[in-house]
Amino acid sequence: MSLAAAAAVRRASAGRYHGEVQPGWDIAGAANGGYLMAIAVNAVLAETNCSDPLTVTAHYLAPARPGPVEVEVAPLRTGRRLATAGASLASADGTRLLAALATVATSAPVPGEQVLLAEGRPPRLPAPQECVRLPATETFPPPFMGRVEVRLHPDDVAFARDRPTGQAVVRGWFGLLDDEPLSGLGVLVGADGFPPPIFNTDLPIAWTPTVELTVHVRARPTSRWLACAFRTRFVAAGYLEADGELWDGDGHLVALSRQLALVPRAE
Amino acid sequence: MSLAAAAAVRRASAGRYHGEVQPGWDIAGAANGGYLMAIAVNAVLAETNCSDPLTVTAHYLAPARPGPVEVEVAPLRTGRRLATAGASLASADGTRLLAALATVATSAPVPGEQVLLAEGRPPRLPAPQECVRLPATETFPPPFMGRVEVRLHPDDVAFARDRPTGQAVVRGWFGLLDDEPLSGLGVLVGADGFPPPIFNTDLPIAWTPTVELTVHVRARPTSRWLACAFRTRFVAAGYLEADGELWDGDGHLVALSRQLALVPRAE
Repeated sequence: MSLAAAAAVRRASAGRYHGEVQPGWDIAGAANGGYLMAIAVNAVLAETNCSDPLTVTAHYLAPARPGPVEVEVAPLRTGRRLATAGASLASADGTRLLAALATVATSAPVPGEQVLLAEGRPPRLPAPQECVRLPATETFPPPFMGRVEVRLHPDDVAFARDRPTGQAVVRGWFGLLDDEPLSGLGVLVGADGFPPPIFNTDLPIAWTPTVELTVHVRARPTSRWLACAFRTRFVAAGYLEADGELWDGDGHLVALSRQLALVPRAE
Repeated sequence: MSLAAAAAVRRASAGRYHGEVQPGWDIAGAANGGYLMAIAVNAVLAETNCSDPLTVTAHYLAPARPGPVEVEVAPLRTGRRLATAGASLASADGTRLLAALATVATSAPVPGEQVLLAEGRPPRLPAPQECVRLPATETFPPPFMGRVEVRLHPDDVAFARDRPTGQAVVRGWFGLLDDEPLSGLGVLVGADGFPPPIFNTDLPIAWTPTVELTVHVRARPTSRWLACAFRTRFVAAGYLEADGELWDGDGHLVALSRQLALVPRAE
């Protein structure tokens, strides 16, 4: 099933949409945060007649299981090129799963357009076929890995062999299955699509619940693969951040992401 | 007037608060974004019986002028230690000024508590009295500079003398007037309290409207001054990000911030 189908929403009435959390997009039973964000943003785009996310923040309120969800969209401002809306996702029993704020656009920035400053460059990665695809399992690696194309840098996958690198960095390629084009929604999923960088430190390899995720989509990707790098610099008082950079195949920045998460606990 | 007084809110009814955008907290007539965020978060803290912001995102919808504002708070989740709420700020004529999502806490992380990873350190700054305080003027530097203590690194203030450094970096100290303690609200103001880093490039020194600001408060500061560094790496297609780090006097990270802003235009 494509991301477009898995994140599809159907308008029920003004500001109300029906969607479905599809099975298999989960980590330890809870649907991936980027995927949930994509469902919410899909409804925002429909309600605002916009095409592309620009900046989206989601706060995660409860783990989402497969099943129908309702998205409520509250438009807050509609401009000529940008619109801002709040969105919330709830399960059939009324449990709030996610709250989001999104500013979306009628057209996406074109990669490489009006570049006045670009400090940084994509991570150097072996070709996707020389990187490591974690197999989807019932536990770890999670089922989600079977729904997307995540190819990890061979140097950064050491954690999966019980030999973390000691550097809280994870690099790799992100793409969708079956050559599905990477729209803005795909970028949101990519921004939360990798194992936490702290898996490469001596912290437990366990669920690392996202409190909040913010993604700035700086250009709509034109390539099938994104070169991605995620890094954590600070782990303190039970919280950590993970910063992401996502680049397209032509070396243009596609997105910056940052999330705040809880430090994982040994099971 | 203290920040505590300038950001004060009064409960009108469940989820509804009255506040006032005070004069003098503006840049080119529009109230500072961190200050507006502080008003909204103050209402969230009151409504949720919490003491400290943990992660807050605001989308800015219209410039805020001095005058009464109404804050609506919608609690979304209440846990044992954390609560999440949406908040919106509107002027007396009903204009939506800001929408925010906030996860707040019943107690702030203590600086230096359970530090498992800390890559990075505070910017090296001369003592506050050897840094440069921009004077508040009616135009530029803005009135806001008279409401807070911003002391810029002498190397980074070159833009104010028409000689930008060429590096999109601004470092300096942030504090409040009259030794007012820096609570979590003060951290929010500090995260948006500095001139945009791109003033040190050849971009116009002009209003740089914030689309969205996210602040992760990683510890409640214990010092009067915060050592701050702001940097912009990417300016493209009309947008730029500014990343901030705020550190306390003991060298503990207090906050990470990121905003998405519009590229300023020559007047």
